[in-house]
Amino acid sequence: MELSLYTRAAEISEAHAKGKHVVVIDVLRASSTIVQAYENGVERILPVATLEDAKKLLPTLDRKSALLGGEREGRKIEGFDLGNSPLEYTPEAVAGKTVILSTSNGTVAIAGSAPAKEIAIACFLNLSAVVSYLVSARPKGIVVLCAGNVGQLAMEDVVCGGALVDGLERASRARLAMNDGAVAARALAASMTDIGEVVRSSMHGRRLAELGFEADLEFCARIDAYSSVPIAADGRIAGRGAPRR
Amino acid sequence: MELSLYTRAAEISEAHAKGKHVVVIDVLRASSTIVQAYENGVERILPVATLEDAKKLLPTLDRKSALLGGEREGRKIEGFDLGNSPLEYTPEAVAGKTVILSTSNGTVAIAGSAPAKEIAIACFLNLSAVVSYLVSARPKGIVVLCAGNVGQLAMEDVVCGGALVDGLERASRARLAMNDGAVAARALAASMTDIGEVVRSSMHGRRLAELGFEADLEFCARIDAYSSVPIAADGRIAGRGAPRR
Repeated sequence: MELSLYTRAAEISEAHAKGKHVVVIDVLRASSTIVQAYENGVERILPVATLEDAKKLLPTLDRKSALLGGEREGRKIEGFDLGNSPLEYTPEAVAGKTVILSTSNGTVAIAGSAPAKEIAIACFLNLSAVVSYLVSARPKGIVVLCAGNVGQLAMEDVVCGGALVDGLERASRARLAMNDGAVAARALAASMTDIGEVVRSSMHGRRLAELGFEADLEFCARIDAYSSVPIAADGRIAGRGAPRR
Repeated sequence: MELSLYTRAAEISEAHAKGKHVVVIDVLRASSTIVQAYENGVERILPVATLEDAKKLLPTLDRKSALLGGEREGRKIEGFDLGNSPLEYTPEAVAGKTVILSTSNGTVAIAGSAPAKEIAIACFLNLSAVVSYLVSARPKGIVVLCAGNVGQLAMEDVVCGGALVDGLERASRARLAMNDGAVAARALAASMTDIGEVVRSSMHGRRLAELGFEADLEFCARIDAYSSVPIAADGRIAGRGAPRR
């Protein structure tokens, strides 16, 4: 089975995602925020690439149960209900709600992955669960899309992607035909022992610390805190109670 | 000093190369071929991105001393004098000649780097020489552009780039402000002990072996065989005897 890893959201256009399982990794912070919201009972998440898309979508929803979430340059967007800190996505804030989410990297990667058979949302929080999910899904091919940061490779995403590649290789019975990106990410992940330090010392981690989000960094570096795998299909991520389509 | 590493030729557009020193790495094979031709007395190399550019340029030159070189999908281009195997670029073939060179990744990266202050051509063959050159050039900033392969990250280029980053860090007195790409490549390179195996097992290496270029792989994995640093400026790489501009 083909297993390819790409290091920036924009590369999904070259990944020939059609018919494959795409795994979108944006450790800081969209994937971590989505997993947290999912765990805390969100009804559904509508990931959108642009603010315009978010604003168009809002009037089509019941405003009482709809929230706007997301960031630009790490900060909450003016007029939005929530930013992109997973710690904001508490049960009190999101249970039973629809969240329209727009972030700089992660939701762009999700929106770009639309031709895929299925899109799984992954981060350190649910790493082992994503491995198990993919092994049992028996995919035709897997594309690991590390969202990156400001158009560049992001260390925390590639290390998480490499750990995922390693987990798949250990758990899968199929022979994996990897691209160089997957081989490189796996080797990189194997050379890193302290995920907290990887996240803190990354470009994006340092930027978020400057903005006062140190607690997010610690949270997003937790490995296997959760066992859920949010799946994006038809432009939305259904909550855990809801039917998936 | 800023030290940024990018993993694909196309990313030069995001690298803000203006005023900086760009190092173009295409181990398989454009950088290795250029270094070899330079060592073997080529008069000048004109790197071009497209076949159209190559064909336009040829009639402006003295055909007796001009050669067309390059590849598409690893193979010599029909009607061209030379392919992209460094082993073809012998003194007999290239001494005193002008070579118009068009390759799939490397010369695209060089052409895209035109806004840079200076463009150095690097590969394993001249790794330490490039480090010394950059340290003495006292650049404002360095961009390491790993050309990649078919639009993707290429393992052999990133490992070579990481070794260059490591060398610069050891040799430079300035504090280096690295992007995540540079940090990741350095860690990846540190985890690799056998460069021959890195080159042979890479996607591009396996493809070239299929095409019968095993000898190229061995050649391109030689570390510090040469001490020259070809420099591209104003659309050309002057030979070692010629004035640089």
